[in-house]
Amino acid sequence: MPSAIKQMLLGRPIHTKEAGHQRLSNPVALAVFSSDALSSVAYATEEILLGLAIAGTGALALAWPISLAIAALLVVVAFSYRQTIKAYPGGGGAYIVAKENLGDFPGLIAGGALLIDYILTVAVSISAGTAAITSAMPAMLPFKLYIGVAFVVLLAVMNLRGIKESGAIFSGPTFFFLVMLAITIFAGFFKQFLGGGIPVTPHTFPMAEQGAAAASVGLFLIMRAFASGCTAMTGVEAIANGVQAFKQPEATNARRTLTWMAGILLFLFLGTSALATLSHVTPYVELVNGQPETIETIISQLARGIYGTGILYYLLQAGTAAILILAANTSYADFPRLGSFMAGDGYLPKSLRDRGSRLVYSNGMILLTAMSILLLVVFGGETSRLIPLYAIGVFASFTLSQSGMVVHWFRNREPGWHWSAFVNGLGAVVTFVVLIVIAAAKFTSGAWIVLLLIPILVAYFQWVKRAYVRAAARVALPAEEELEFSYRSHNAMHNHVVLLFSSIDRRLVRAVQYARSIKADVIEGLFVDVTGDKAAEVRAEWERLELGYKLTVIESPYREIIDPIRDYVCAIPRPTHDHVVTVVLPEFVPETRAEYLLHDQTSFWIKSALFQLPGVIISDVPYHTEEYLSEQPAQCPVKGPQQAD
Amino acid sequence: MPSAIKQMLLGRPIHTKEAGHQRLSNPVALAVFSSDALSSVAYATEEILLGLAIAGTGALALAWPISLAIAALLVVVAFSYRQTIKAYPGGGGAYIVAKENLGDFPGLIAGGALLIDYILTVAVSISAGTAAITSAMPAMLPFKLYIGVAFVVLLAVMNLRGIKESGAIFSGPTFFFLVMLAITIFAGFFKQFLGGGIPVTPHTFPMAEQGAAAASVGLFLIMRAFASGCTAMTGVEAIANGVQAFKQPEATNARRTLTWMAGILLFLFLGTSALATLSHVTPYVELVNGQPETIETIISQLARGIYGTGILYYLLQAGTAAILILAANTSYADFPRLGSFMAGDGYLPKSLRDRGSRLVYSNGMILLTAMSILLLVVFGGETSRLIPLYAIGVFASFTLSQSGMVVHWFRNREPGWHWSAFVNGLGAVVTFVVLIVIAAAKFTSGAWIVLLLIPILVAYFQWVKRAYVRAAARVALPAEEELEFSYRSHNAMHNHVVLLFSSIDRRLVRAVQYARSIKADVIEGLFVDVTGDKAAEVRAEWERLELGYKLTVIESPYREIIDPIRDYVCAIPRPTHDHVVTVVLPEFVPETRAEYLLHDQTSFWIKSALFQLPGVIISDVPYHTEEYLSEQPAQCPVKGPQQAD
Repeated sequence: MPSAIKQMLLGRPIHTKEAGHQRLSNPVALAVFSSDALSSVAYATEEILLGLAIAGTGALALAWPISLAIAALLVVVAFSYRQTIKAYPGGGGAYIVAKENLGDFPGLIAGGALLIDYILTVAVSISAGTAAITSAMPAMLPFKLYIGVAFVVLLAVMNLRGIKESGAIFSGPTFFFLVMLAITIFAGFFKQFLGGGIPVTPHTFPMAEQGAAAASVGLFLIMRAFASGCTAMTGVEAIANGVQAFKQPEATNARRTLTWMAGILLFLFLGTSALATLSHVTPYVELVNGQPETIETIISQLARGIYGTGILYYLLQAGTAAILILAANTSYADFPRLGSFMAGDGYLPKSLRDRGSRLVYSNGMILLTAMSILLLVVFGGETSRLIPLYAIGVFASFTLSQSGMVVHWFRNREPGWHWSAFVNGLGAVVTFVVLIVIAAAKFTSGAWIVLLLIPILVAYFQWVKRAYVRAAARVALPAEEELEFSYRSHNAMHNHVVLLFSSIDRRLVRAVQYARSIKADVIEGLFVDVTGDKAAEVRAEWERLELGYKLTVIESPYREIIDPIRDYVCAIPRPTHDHVVTVVLPEFVPETRAEYLLHDQTSFWIKSALFQLPGVIISDVPYHTEEYLSEQPAQCPVKGPQQAD
Repeated sequence: MPSAIKQMLLGRPIHTKEAGHQRLSNPVALAVFSSDALSSVAYATEEILLGLAIAGTGALALAWPISLAIAALLVVVAFSYRQTIKAYPGGGGAYIVAKENLGDFPGLIAGGALLIDYILTVAVSISAGTAAITSAMPAMLPFKLYIGVAFVVLLAVMNLRGIKESGAIFSGPTFFFLVMLAITIFAGFFKQFLGGGIPVTPHTFPMAEQGAAAASVGLFLIMRAFASGCTAMTGVEAIANGVQAFKQPEATNARRTLTWMAGILLFLFLGTSALATLSHVTPYVELVNGQPETIETIISQLARGIYGTGILYYLLQAGTAAILILAANTSYADFPRLGSFMAGDGYLPKSLRDRGSRLVYSNGMILLTAMSILLLVVFGGETSRLIPLYAIGVFASFTLSQSGMVVHWFRNREPGWHWSAFVNGLGAVVTFVVLIVIAAAKFTSGAWIVLLLIPILVAYFQWVKRAYVRAAARVALPAEEELEFSYRSHNAMHNHVVLLFSSIDRRLVRAVQYARSIKADVIEGLFVDVTGDKAAEVRAEWERLELGYKLTVIESPYREIIDPIRDYVCAIPRPTHDHVVTVVLPEFVPETRAEYLLHDQTSFWIKSALFQLPGVIISDVPYHTEEYLSEQPAQCPVKGPQQAD
């Protein structure tokens, strides 16, 4: 990317030493790390209702007990993670906790599960945020996918600029949403009990079973609704993963923030579920091309009932959309960080380990962006189609992380370890049971994808690790070889130089000059004739120039260029490994970038093919007209603006 | 692409000498070149009705007089093209005719217009073909875009295999469609006049103006309907462009085939329009997300009315889908051919000029595939949204081509030239008037895109030409320089060798060995420290190895690698143009392709950046473990299967 554009989008580069200063205060950290968990109230209640609606309107009342069960689960998990922060002030994501206490393999399962869920967090949050917008402005419904993709791209650019500026941008909307939803819940209870009830329009659920009544509600249906509602818990682990980003003392600040977050989440989720049950609001879904699409969200319907379609309604919708879209930001903080941990351990390509010019893990962010856009497109930007994939990874990592903590407490036996081990043990058992429930209830509607993907990812991590270990062993220079290094490196190589050219012109002059500057055993010319009528002409010209080198012309009636060259180079005998073939390629350097496409890409493909061959060195000899004509060396291009300081 | 896969998809390579044998008999040529023109009856009548429906059901009766006008226009254009074939037996596309007779600039306009239209032919035909399928199987409606894209990919693979095999595949469906539609038209007239009429279900047109009646039908509305119907004429020029593909005598065979095609087209188009008017069939369109989508095509409705939903109905729909999808094949024959002509003249990148291993213009086909898929996706695979863009380019090239022919006849004055000039002159005037009508009537609904794109393309063609002319002048070796060639090429270059490494290991051994085999003025080591703590360690190790070369360590606190290297290399003084800098890069060659992604892409970006610099030669020194350890040269990889013969 041209430097000026890069700097405009990303801001000035940040010095490695500035790393320590990029820490977050508790309220900012609450916004950055908790927007995922908090924003899930925007869809969790709705997903429970959608799960129940198939059994008819009577079944919707079950949403309240299901919500209470999820709230109890949330309390257990939040307490569990408070223990984790205490034990892992350096940042205790499920990957690290599982790896250190249970072993590499469980750690990789946790890592794979988390990576998948961070991607799903982006896709689900953006879909739900877009639904908040289209609920308020139904005219935007046809464009929801484009809106979602645009938001992901916006988030990517903001995050590539660096986390502190992101934090500042994200605090406002998060707190605005909290205040707006709290006001709405209070106003809703007031209207329900003292103002004569919240008026809502009943909608028929298009997939509702004919003649089904509350009596037919089975255990499986309740399990499905519960599993859908468990998405309310996604993101609870984010603070424990990101302890490093808090101000000192990190652990204390992180625990305090986690407790605040859990309390706020409980209030908002139970408040919304209670209002939904009391007001008998129904999901508003229509079939478009045979697929259900949400026309108006539950929260939008409730807010219209409470406020009417006025300024407060629009403020709440705007706040909901804002926090949901920003919830995706939790993943932009955690996905690249986890990717970097795992790449540092050798389980992912190294390019995910390194920080970019703005001190952020740029490659991880780009990967996250690409994968989330793919998910959005495949699932049509519809929240309820993504939900079945969502909670599996979260609960898998919950279970592994809490189990790891139990082992940790038994090993370390710090003061008060009995209580900590009990809390984490309870967390492990409860989340494991929920994991089984979710996997069973959502298997056919999408959970199978994640259950299949996790083992594939684990196998990939292990393959990457093995490949790196092998590669390191291959190039390593053991101490006993250092003497040999000195000896061998004093032996120059024997060069067989092949001058590969496509026409006899000024470029060839430079290439011949360069070839003469190599200590070569042999220098020869090579020309591939794809038209079938150039051979004689090229031979005659080669003779006339009296270079004194052999010329080989390859006839290529099938118009292949790459394969004949590769075969020819391969066939050149090399008696020992100190004999190499140097292929000298005259190159025309276009004057402008736009012209690169005009000059045939053949030399790129030749280089790619020859790079695969052992003992073959490729030397590109560039030709610049001004240099050739003036005998003065050509000047380097002017540097980009970011080198100016 | 791995050779085995390439050969499986594309078939064995074809020898250049086989070029002459790939000719088509008249019936096969009719199928290959006329499927575009003939298939347009599947949507032309429908588009006229859609244009009229906005004024209410009463206006639909105007379809018949509009169809008659289009039929008259078709006769004029077909006669015109018969004259073109006579004058241009070598293949007289609008580009060649306009360029030779009117000059380069009109030629480029015609070329740009045609390229755009070939792409649109693929998109429109595939959309309409998919509509024929979804009319018969409404359950497939939600997947119409995926179906369309899949068909384009299928066509691309078939065409990349070569034109003769394509011809054989395409003849069957084309003739099957002709027979099926002819039977349907006869059966339709029989049922209409003797069987009590064709029963059709009336549909309300969702965009129909409230209370509009036939009385309110204005001139503009008629113009729009006429412009839409003119898409019936697209593809009439295909035979004149492809005369080369006919058996000898090419011109006679091509003219005969053109006459047959025009006759068949007239019969089918007027037959369909007559049945539609007589039976009072109405377009069946629904609004989906605010956009009109065709639920059932006119031909499908007519056929159901005539046959009922039985075997004959499904055969007709299958035939319609088949010919429409294959109509896109006309473009696969002509787009790459025109691209190759224009690339041969220097107006398009050279890569479009060259034939691939199967004697077809592979790059042109790939470009066509990519652009048509883009159009399908942007316009949602809906025929009626693409139609406004379609006819502009066709009629622009008709006009330029016929005008060019008039100039041709006046210049050459062959026997009978008066008549030929009159026919072409009439064609030029009539098509120009139609062009103005289409541009005016369809401007706001999409024609503006094409009217904007044509001048952009013409400017691009001219830029490409200028760039090639400049590049050729730069590298050319004039006769008077040949002596200098000899003199200069005997002066070896002065080399300043930079050994660029990221760690001191076995790879560096090979790189140092190679550096010693260059006649160098200076050899030095270069290491970029991005972590800030490696410098001392690397310096110490470098000293211990006693290489005797200077080592430069660049500190890079912003973790940039590319820019510091570029700056360092740029700053190396080069007294004359015979002084060059050789950058030696030790490279780890991964054992398998899958591992390439694991090894950092940094060296690729370094090479890309250094390639931009004048006087810098890059030498990749590959490291293979087995070779390093055994002192035996490593073996070349086993060759692909296509080299076996």
